[in-house]
Amino acid sequence: TKLWGGRFEESVTDIVEKFTESISFDKQLYKHDIMGSKAHASMLAQQGLISLSERDSILKGLDEIQRSIEAGEFVWRTDREDVHMNIEAALTDMVGEPAKKLHTARSRNDQVLTDFRLWCRDAIDSIVASIRNLQVALVKLALKNEGLIIPGYTHLQRAQPVLLQHLLLAFVEQLDRDAGRLLDCKARLNFSPLGACALAGTGLPIDRFMTSNALGFTAPMRNSIDAVSDRDFVLEFLSANSIIAVHLSRIGEEWVLWASEEFGFITPSDSVSTGSSIMPQKKNPDPMELVRGKSARVIGDLVTLLTLCKGLPLAYNRDLQEDKEPTFDSVKTVIGMLEVSAEFAQNITFNDERIRKALPAGYLDATTLADYLVKKGIPFRTSHDIVGRSVALCVSKNCQLQDLSLEDMRSLSPVFDNDVYEFLGVENAVKKFSSYGSTGLECVADQIGYWVAKLEINKS
Amino acid sequence: TKLWGGRFEESVTDIVEKFTESISFDKQLYKHDIMGSKAHASMLAQQGLISLSERDSILKGLDEIQRSIEAGEFVWRTDREDVHMNIEAALTDMVGEPAKKLHTARSRNDQVLTDFRLWCRDAIDSIVASIRNLQVALVKLALKNEGLIIPGYTHLQRAQPVLLQHLLLAFVEQLDRDAGRLLDCKARLNFSPLGACALAGTGLPIDRFMTSNALGFTAPMRNSIDAVSDRDFVLEFLSANSIIAVHLSRIGEEWVLWASEEFGFITPSDSVSTGSSIMPQKKNPDPMELVRGKSARVIGDLVTLLTLCKGLPLAYNRDLQEDKEPTFDSVKTVIGMLEVSAEFAQNITFNDERIRKALPAGYLDATTLADYLVKKGIPFRTSHDIVGRSVALCVSKNCQLQDLSLEDMRSLSPVFDNDVYEFLGVENAVKKFSSYGSTGLECVADQIGYWVAKLEINKS
Amino acid sequence: TKLWGGRFEESVTDIVEKFTESISFDKQLYKHDIMGSKAHASMLAQQGLISLSERDSILKGLDEIQRSIEAGEFVWRTDREDVHMNIEAALTDMVGEPAKKLHTARSRNDQVLTDFRLWCRDAIDSIVASIRNLQVALVKLALKNEGLIIPGYTHLQRAQPVLLQHLLLAFVEQLDRDAGRLLDCKARLNFSPLGACALAGTGLPIDRFMTSNALGFTAPMRNSIDAVSDRDFVLEFLSANSIIAVHLSRIGEEWVLWASEEFGFITPSDSVSTGSSIMPQKKNPDPMELVRGKSARVIGDLVTLLTLCKGLPLAYNRDLQEDKEPTFDSVKTVIGMLEVSAEFAQNITFNDERIRKALPAGYLDATTLADYLVKKGIPFRTSHDIVGRSVALCVSKNCQLQDLSLEDMRSLSPVFDNDVYEFLGVENAVKKFSSYGSTGLECVADQIGYWVAKLEINKS
Amino acid sequence: TKLWGGRFEESVTDIVEKFTESISFDKQLYKHDIMGSKAHASMLAQQGLISLSERDSILKGLDEIQRSIEAGEFVWRTDREDVHMNIEAALTDMVGEPAKKLHTARSRNDQVLTDFRLWCRDAIDSIVASIRNLQVALVKLALKNEGLIIPGYTHLQRAQPVLLQHLLLAFVEQLDRDAGRLLDCKARLNFSPLGACALAGTGLPIDRFMTSNALGFTAPMRNSIDAVSDRDFVLEFLSANSIIAVHLSRIGEEWVLWASEEFGFITPSDSVSTGSSIMPQKKNPDPMELVRGKSARVIGDLVTLLTLCKGLPLAYNRDLQEDKEPTFDSVKTVIGMLEVSAEFAQNITFNDERIRKALPAGYLDATTLADYLVKKGIPFRTSHDIVGRSVALCVSKNCQLQDLSLEDMRSLSPVFDNDVYEFLGVENAVKKFSSYGSTGLECVADQIGYWVAKLEINKS
Repeated sequence: TKLWGGRFEESVTDIVEKFTESISFDKQLYKHDIMGSKAHASMLAQQGLISLSERDSILKGLDEIQRSIEAGEFVWRTDREDVHMNIEAALTDMVGEPAKKLHTARSRNDQVLTDFRLWCRDAIDSIVASIRNLQVALVKLALKNEGLIIPGYTHLQRAQPVLLQHLLLAFVEQLDRDAGRLLDCKARLNFSPLGACALAGTGLPIDRFMTSNALGFTAPMRNSIDAVSDRDFVLEFLSANSIIAVHLSRIGEEWVLWASEEFGFITPSDSVSTGSSIMPQKKNPDPMELVRGKSARVIGDLVTLLTLCKGLPLAYNRDLQEDKEPTFDSVKTVIGMLEVSAEFAQNITFNDERIRKALPAGYLDATTLADYLVKKGIPFRTSHDIVGRSVALCVSKNCQLQDLSLEDMRSLSPVFDNDVYEFLGVENAVKKFSSYGSTGLECVADQIGYWVAKLEINKS
Repeated sequence: TKLWGGRFEESVTDIVEKFTESISFDKQLYKHDIMGSKAHASMLAQQGLISLSERDSILKGLDEIQRSIEAGEFVWRTDREDVHMNIEAALTDMVGEPAKKLHTARSRNDQVLTDFRLWCRDAIDSIVASIRNLQVALVKLALKNEGLIIPGYTHLQRAQPVLLQHLLLAFVEQLDRDAGRLLDCKARLNFSPLGACALAGTGLPIDRFMTSNALGFTAPMRNSIDAVSDRDFVLEFLSANSIIAVHLSRIGEEWVLWASEEFGFITPSDSVSTGSSIMPQKKNPDPMELVRGKSARVIGDLVTLLTLCKGLPLAYNRDLQEDKEPTFDSVKTVIGMLEVSAEFAQNITFNDERIRKALPAGYLDATTLADYLVKKGIPFRTSHDIVGRSVALCVSKNCQLQDLSLEDMRSLSPVFDNDVYEFLGVENAVKKFSSYGSTGLECVADQIGYWVAKLEINKS
Repeated sequence: TKLWGGRFEESVTDIVEKFTESISFDKQLYKHDIMGSKAHASMLAQQGLISLSERDSILKGLDEIQRSIEAGEFVWRTDREDVHMNIEAALTDMVGEPAKKLHTARSRNDQVLTDFRLWCRDAIDSIVASIRNLQVALVKLALKNEGLIIPGYTHLQRAQPVLLQHLLLAFVEQLDRDAGRLLDCKARLNFSPLGACALAGTGLPIDRFMTSNALGFTAPMRNSIDAVSDRDFVLEFLSANSIIAVHLSRIGEEWVLWASEEFGFITPSDSVSTGSSIMPQKKNPDPMELVRGKSARVIGDLVTLLTLCKGLPLAYNRDLQEDKEPTFDSVKTVIGMLEVSAEFAQNITFNDERIRKALPAGYLDATTLADYLVKKGIPFRTSHDIVGRSVALCVSKNCQLQDLSLEDMRSLSPVFDNDVYEFLGVENAVKKFSSYGSTGLECVADQIGYWVAKLEINKS
Repeated sequence: TKLWGGRFEESVTDIVEKFTESISFDKQLYKHDIMGSKAHASMLAQQGLISLSERDSILKGLDEIQRSIEAGEFVWRTDREDVHMNIEAALTDMVGEPAKKLHTARSRNDQVLTDFRLWCRDAIDSIVASIRNLQVALVKLALKNEGLIIPGYTHLQRAQPVLLQHLLLAFVEQLDRDAGRLLDCKARLNFSPLGACALAGTGLPIDRFMTSNALGFTAPMRNSIDAVSDRDFVLEFLSANSIIAVHLSRIGEEWVLWASEEFGFITPSDSVSTGSSIMPQKKNPDPMELVRGKSARVIGDLVTLLTLCKGLPLAYNRDLQEDKEPTFDSVKTVIGMLEVSAEFAQNITFNDERIRKALPAGYLDATTLADYLVKKGIPFRTSHDIVGRSVALCVSKNCQLQDLSLEDMRSLSPVFDNDVYEFLGVENAVKKFSSYGSTGLECVADQIGYWVAKLEINKS
């Protein structure tokens, strides 16, 4: 029989029990549930609501339950509904009367939110650690490929030459903001709902500041109704995860492209590739395809939670039990995506030779040429037009800009002079970049330095 | 080592293996995978691509594997990646050489889609059966409560009186369109991809019509690239599920409202209610709250799949492996929602007395009064205005429309006569409805008859 | 003052008026609103609820209003809330008393749904026409490029050679199912809500079958509460649109890839390309990028509607006013995407020469070689392994499969014979395909024939 | 002809022009575009890239264009594509040659992001102001209703009595976190992309710190590729908006419930209500229904943007043009929702009398009674059980807990004594609450004091 069974004469049907149970997933919260119960019991004892020896029985029992769970010996029971009731009932089986006092001045409403906020706090720490790990992998990949120039794209059309290092650091920057978002979220969620009870607080003499401190929260939440009703902290968390996932999906797309025969920029090692059951020659960059694909479920998880919370009246509604699975899934997926991306980064080789050979295609130096004309005093719009016509000339001659004779160029503008050839060709073009944040050699070296220091990377 | 390992020198890292495996969830497809393999083996034999005795070894082996899976004896191995490779490898372990011929003229690309289409076809049948079950429960609930009048709402404001039966049948209608959508989806997905191989078909002399027939498909798909690339059949399926889920969420909201102290229309039995861990008096309609809440995850699953497929180039990409979990979750959730809603419908009692007492509030007969005036020749807009002012008069007098004296009414319009009282009061109002599809007694009786017949409900 | 103002003493505040108005967007429904009102007025007259001359005034007035709207002379007023009230009020201004009778036995609840279903029916017809148009453009593009072989991809890795025609027809197949979904949706939504009134029907002697027929509906809806509450027809419509959008996003991705320097399969004409404000050499396939991107808003529109409807109690709630903008946006976007895709298809040239040159890369004939071994009696798994090692040999020798000597091949399997060279090379590989739905020359010719006939394409 | 037309021989087709234009919506950015151009021109002059007189022509021209736009005189041209090209071309028409130099060391890629970040920064400020406004309205509503006790709900079942003030402050807390999220987002997005140019920076001697300062940014972004590729700042912004929208949807649901006949807690004034076109007695809380409903589109807008960005390769892709409309819609909708909620809060009256009369229903004092037993030394679980049975007794006797005789109670537990009656009844129950954050009188008074001070509300 259920712990809340007092006024009930009939037990729920099997269909209802199966449909409403949460133990199959919320047992993940066991560690934080026990942590919360221990803090609560200690506070009850200090406030005289239970005796010291009752407290000790409870604490010892909870330790034993934790050990038993972690040893795989604990039997989770569906008829005990959820993690809270399973642990409390097991505690009662074990220590008897004192266990019946543990739920004093507490409801599952504030208890589950205490557990869940603690769980999210830890999950954020794990994700941030995985982000750092991927950032390090990217910077190391950059260090290994110093000086490599690749085409930069817009519209997937070749645009301007960029240093590979510069491009890899763009991902590092994005990941840094991702970590920032998570840390802001953590600061905002780290307040204690414990003691809000069902929704209204309690008349028993509890000390919410004591439990808040013991659990490492910043402070107790100010409003008990708010404490049990809102799920904005998970919405914020899953939003942050979704943005991470979108970032990683873009790395996935990029690297899948790079690994194609057509781009041919990278060769992933066998250890991060898979084959085909029918086509013997295939070697596929599956992990990064899955990184791209799994972003969808992180987004789906967020949509689930937003839709779940929409239009619910105050305070707690059972709908909110559905907040956990999408959160667990989002966290697990994002960590997996981060880990496998780092693994992939550590297992790709850039095909320098092939990249170098293909570089001239696409007139990557056209904008540098336009800057040349600007430096000679031609208004930019006019320069743009002159270079546009130069490119058209190259297309008709099937040659590169640097292959045009000075005469050819002068037919388009008298301003061209011999020094123009210092601006043409991909290597020259890269050398010319000088603005802050640009792909110029020095700028990028500075950025690399910044990240090596910030991420405490050992370059040796 | 993997079955595709020919050109590979290194095996994948643990992180990659764990991230890319699908066996933890796609083993659900085992039955349909075996069904597909049996049809394929029989066809290979008929076409002379394998011998009859090879075929027999394969068929016998597959039967044994199915038995072993269903007996819980089969060991699923993560290093064998997915359900297809697990079964093929187990078959090889069991019957040796013939098993190595099973993958002739087949790729995992067409194999998984064969399995998945068969699985979805069965899932649709299950959902449709659950829909019928809920429709029956609703009609039976209607039969039990013949004649009961409740307030109809718009904007959650009392609007007009309606028969409870009429309202319950509105849900039955919606569920019927839900079934229709699923059946359309089933007809559209029931085409065989088997034989499309990796993406281009094969040069081996296979007979795709034979396997298509054997598996109960309408015909083989016409285009092999289409066959392995598209997931529109799951998108359509999950869209249909999302619409069902939205419908059920509305029943959930409705019944949660009805079970509140304030509405007080229904009392759910203890067998479909749960209590509170802190508040001893609580009895909550949790199953229907969860029905409302779980609609969110069905929507989230659809979003996952739409986002997953967006922007993928042809043909198969590993991202698409992510199509299964949301589909499995959507199906399981929707079936649970349907079942528990039927269970709930079977376990609620309408509080006739209380409903009747509360009925007069809200001037539910106001529109009937306006129709009275229209029948007397007053233009509707003018009638609307007169009745509006009659209601204002009642508000000031704190009475019902039927409590107004004829004199009072005549002060608003000389058209009012003694026969007006036949139009006032909730019972009179309901009696007046006569249009097709309306809440009039006869109309609703007709509708009930229609559904009892269509759903083959035994009224006794 | 509002037409419903009878019992109201104060008018709404500006903020409320601005927030709740719908005239800024629902005026799009004007034509269907007038169509519905005309059918309603004719029915009222036939049933004796208005006189023939009242009917004529109304019909004439409505015609004049339609003319005035289409001439851009009509003044839409926000204080008149929505399209229904604007037209009814304008009619009253114009023809006086008879107009006040038009709303007899009708509510805005059934009126707006009549309008909206009619609008969606027309919108579906437009989209289906645009689908046909794109299918024709794709088939014509296929006809222009008969015989062209391109690499088929899985995992964006070169897999097997396919005929371009075959690949283009894969899109045609997908679009055909898209049209099928829309037509199913249209059949399901084409029922008349008119006469459901607010939610309960009416006691006035209306004829719902007459209006249903007049408006081309299949029949009146059976249940008035269902008629005004549900939005499943739009959810189904927007789901179908989302699937179309996902399909088109994949064409977008494909063509953006093809237009890249690296793939170089196609050159879009200047008339469907755009340039860069800074890089003079750029020529971007913007329309197809936008097709890919705009798929996101079609999905977003669906999510809006699903989330909107989730958890609403019966019957009409004002939330539902929000059903129109996402629908209008979805339809407009999908039609734009279809049109521009057709335009793009008509303006690209395949770079045969370049494609042919690049074809050998990627061992596209490896699977054909495995089939060769199967035909020689080698089990497929063993063949797969032998070919895998043959490819590894080629990689080490930096050559193609057809460049291996017979000796080389025999070192891997004694089965290889001189006839193996008939299976090697991309052209040979394509010739070997023969299964139904495959990329074999005859199979594809059959498919082309099927679509030319079905789409009634004039090949000359 | 387009400003990028140099190498183009043909102009785009009408269909393409119409599909790809953005001027119909991005003209909203005009003010920030001009602001950015002025900062850019001043920097170009300081760096010697243009002359002082050229700068002055440009600045004067831009001022004139701004004036002309705000006076409604400016003609936006679709053939000029977007806001940037419209303004630049208009400037060229006006001041000639100098205008052709404005685009020096700038691309539309960094320009649009400069504009958009500035726009978002302002939008955040507007939303935060609207949040403060709603918080003030809620606190004032609380001040007006001091001491009013209402039922607190969980599962929409009556749970415990709470002070209305306490409940209203729960919303205030949630809104405060909403503002916090927006301010974090603003701090993270306030970095300058200007000078990133197309994607690689420039070789011209620009000063990115100068423009960053002039535009009030914290600093220039460190990586030019990151600067033009990422949209995480809008994703974060729209996530924050979605959470606000979910919060407001819950207020909407709550107040729609409260305005129902059944709850009857509030009466909205006529100025925030609307009527029915058919039912003369109706008075609907439409604004709050729409607040609830419009939350869906804010969520839909976020989904659009997440899906849009998913899987895009670096750097800029035209898909990203679609980032603006959902953002504009999200901002406009959220501001509308906040404003109308404040308006509604200012126009509702609580029906004290009716609330008080209905309060006893639901055994709201049951938990207080359990606390009584705990104070007497009974373990909580036992207390819970005793009170559960007390409630069952009341149900059978159809009475309230306070109506039970001491004898009745003692039959359930000998611990009950005469002092129990001080814990029974709703007023007593509220008085007993004392924990921090609870609904106790003093706790709530403290909270009110906190918010009055923080929001600087003038209580007189």
